[in-house]
Amino acid sequence: MKVDPWKVEGKVDYEKLIKEFGLKKIDEKTLELIKKVSEEKNEKLHLFLRRKLFFSHRDFDIALKEYFEGKKFFLYTGRAPGGKMHLGHLIPFLFTKYLQKIFDVNLYIQIPDDEKFLFKKNLTLNKVKEMTEQDLLDIAALNFDEDKTFIFKNSEYIKNMYPLFLKTAKKINFSTVKATFGFNNESNIGMISYPALQIIPTFFEKNRAVIPCAIDQDPYFRLQRDIAESLGFKKNVNIHSKFLPPLTGFEGKMSSSEEEKAILLSDDEKTVKKKINKYAFSGGKNTLEEHRKYGGDTSIDVSYIWLYYLFEEDDNKILEVKEQYESGKLLSGELKAMLIEKINSFLKQHNKNKEKAKSKLKKYMYEGKLAKQMWKKIHE
Amino acid sequence: MKVDPWKVEGKVDYEKLIKEFGLKKIDEKTLELIKKVSEEKNEKLHLFLRRKLFFSHRDFDIALKEYFEGKKFFLYTGRAPGGKMHLGHLIPFLFTKYLQKIFDVNLYIQIPDDEKFLFKKNLTLNKVKEMTEQDLLDIAALNFDEDKTFIFKNSEYIKNMYPLFLKTAKKINFSTVKATFGFNNESNIGMISYPALQIIPTFFEKNRAVIPCAIDQDPYFRLQRDIAESLGFKKNVNIHSKFLPPLTGFEGKMSSSEEEKAILLSDDEKTVKKKINKYAFSGGKNTLEEHRKYGGDTSIDVSYIWLYYLFEEDDNKILEVKEQYESGKLLSGELKAMLIEKINSFLKQHNKNKEKAKSKLKKYMYEGKLAKQMWKKIHE
Repeated sequence: MKVDPWKVEGKVDYEKLIKEFGLKKIDEKTLELIKKVSEEKNEKLHLFLRRKLFFSHRDFDIALKEYFEGKKFFLYTGRAPGGKMHLGHLIPFLFTKYLQKIFDVNLYIQIPDDEKFLFKKNLTLNKVKEMTEQDLLDIAALNFDEDKTFIFKNSEYIKNMYPLFLKTAKKINFSTVKATFGFNNESNIGMISYPALQIIPTFFEKNRAVIPCAIDQDPYFRLQRDIAESLGFKKNVNIHSKFLPPLTGFEGKMSSSEEEKAILLSDDEKTVKKKINKYAFSGGKNTLEEHRKYGGDTSIDVSYIWLYYLFEEDDNKILEVKEQYESGKLLSGELKAMLIEKINSFLKQHNKNKEKAKSKLKKYMYEGKLAKQMWKKIHE
Repeated sequence: MKVDPWKVEGKVDYEKLIKEFGLKKIDEKTLELIKKVSEEKNEKLHLFLRRKLFFSHRDFDIALKEYFEGKKFFLYTGRAPGGKMHLGHLIPFLFTKYLQKIFDVNLYIQIPDDEKFLFKKNLTLNKVKEMTEQDLLDIAALNFDEDKTFIFKNSEYIKNMYPLFLKTAKKINFSTVKATFGFNNESNIGMISYPALQIIPTFFEKNRAVIPCAIDQDPYFRLQRDIAESLGFKKNVNIHSKFLPPLTGFEGKMSSSEEEKAILLSDDEKTVKKKINKYAFSGGKNTLEEHRKYGGDTSIDVSYIWLYYLFEEDDNKILEVKEQYESGKLLSGELKAMLIEKINSFLKQHNKNKEKAKSKLKKYMYEGKLAKQMWKKIHE
């Protein structure tokens, strides 16, 4: 197993990561507290929490305690353009949207349109630019709070972040990024200083930053905790998601550069159908007879797992699917058909939202209340 | 001897540096060509060239050849705020001003208000800000071409340079900056990526950049030559000055943090008088009798050397001073008095110019023809 911000290889052992990274599981007490806040806003506890797709945290209990004492936190997440967006990429955004709604807090979304260019040998800035515009619309389609959300590209907002970038970069030496990110003598000097930029938004407010992200991004935020207080800011708080397994099974994470591994947000209905039927790793048996007799294995069946984590909101319904599949009543093809239907209906709605996302994006980036404030600030 | 962009120690052996850095001496043929251009503009060959304060170059012969074929170059120099400016700091600017005048070319002046902050442990950004404003006025007081000069602070212009910064940084790895600048594992990640920023202005035009600077800055521009063509730009050209020796003698270079070593631009008449009389290393003999008998040594006398390089324009006059001093006619105190008078009259004029520099600075930074063009450009 290898998990760092640029690579996930092998079957991910989440228990091991919790220990290695010094995290805590999200426990029942924490879930109860979030549920309470949710219900006050007429929301259910989010599917991703009920199903433990978001499963670990660092100090979120502290952020919650402070919240109940009247001290607000703020949310920060992001997306580095450089490839096509797939379903997995939406997970932190969907979850962050929910957290913003129930806690009613500011949200900063960093679009590091520099990162992938620096890290990927053959990627050009023009290609990144193209992809950035698409990604922005996909993100804006999710609907955040127009006056409490600021989405920014590093290339556009760099001047406002520059003094704070310098202060942060001055606190981090090569040894540290070498140990934290595995940089070496061949790493380019842009990569080497990049981590400071990903940390900056955690300092956008004197309040505490809460960062929902996939667990591979954790190294950045461990580093933040070593320097935050010496710069006059609070240590950040993290809530981590597991990776949605690739269509092909549990090895690694979804990747949009390997078409058999992921459903892209740009896939049409036919492509979705074809991909799921062709690639979705099945826990079903080899023959109809065997399947009816022994049943399918939901613990390795990607279609079931995607339904469980992403699409089947109804707790009774998912239990029923599980039982029917494991008993052999439900066939692999039938399970896949359920997933295809769910994905296509999700993407249909997403594309509808995306059509209207342009004007929303303007609010998030430039014209909303928070955005306007942020363009006036030089962060120091 | 140690010469790098942040430290000059020992007595500098310029012959050795020429060999080590792969440079050429400015030869008589080159001087003839520059003289020709100067005289067309009713200017004499500059004192700094006649006296060989600017003494070496890399490819300036090529830039001249191209110039005579009708291909213009552009000038680039700079100043990193972080300490008080002294007389030595003006040398590249005075020389660049002359080159701009005779060649009638664009000039870019980078004010890296990030560099010293990153490199000096106890320097704060607020202190740098303060010093930057002073430095800008001192530079603007020298009078460049209002429509062909662009002066910019990195912190303000960073957004316009950012794509090109990324492209440049991607071409340079840690091994290279380690070898070129002596960075190590303890170097902070801001320092490590900074060299890319100092290279960017050499790419402001597709034309060739000609960079007058003190020889300690050469490593940046050697590095530029390794990557320029792969980014679609031309290799830069350098003209190097020697260091004006500190008041105390030939070891190291002038430093504004050691008051006995330099005349600051902010020193008043009394301070100048006191410093020269007290600290200027003398080549005179210990007693009046001995001095009259054996004469002074101009090769180690800092007052003579400053007069020679900076203040006594008249070739006959400086020869006369030399002869009189070496013969014992002219006493050390008298020589010092000549220098004091020259410095104070220079500083008086400089301060007068500085009073009117604010409106000029606006032109150089924002409102002149070149400045306006530059603010519209995102360099890629």
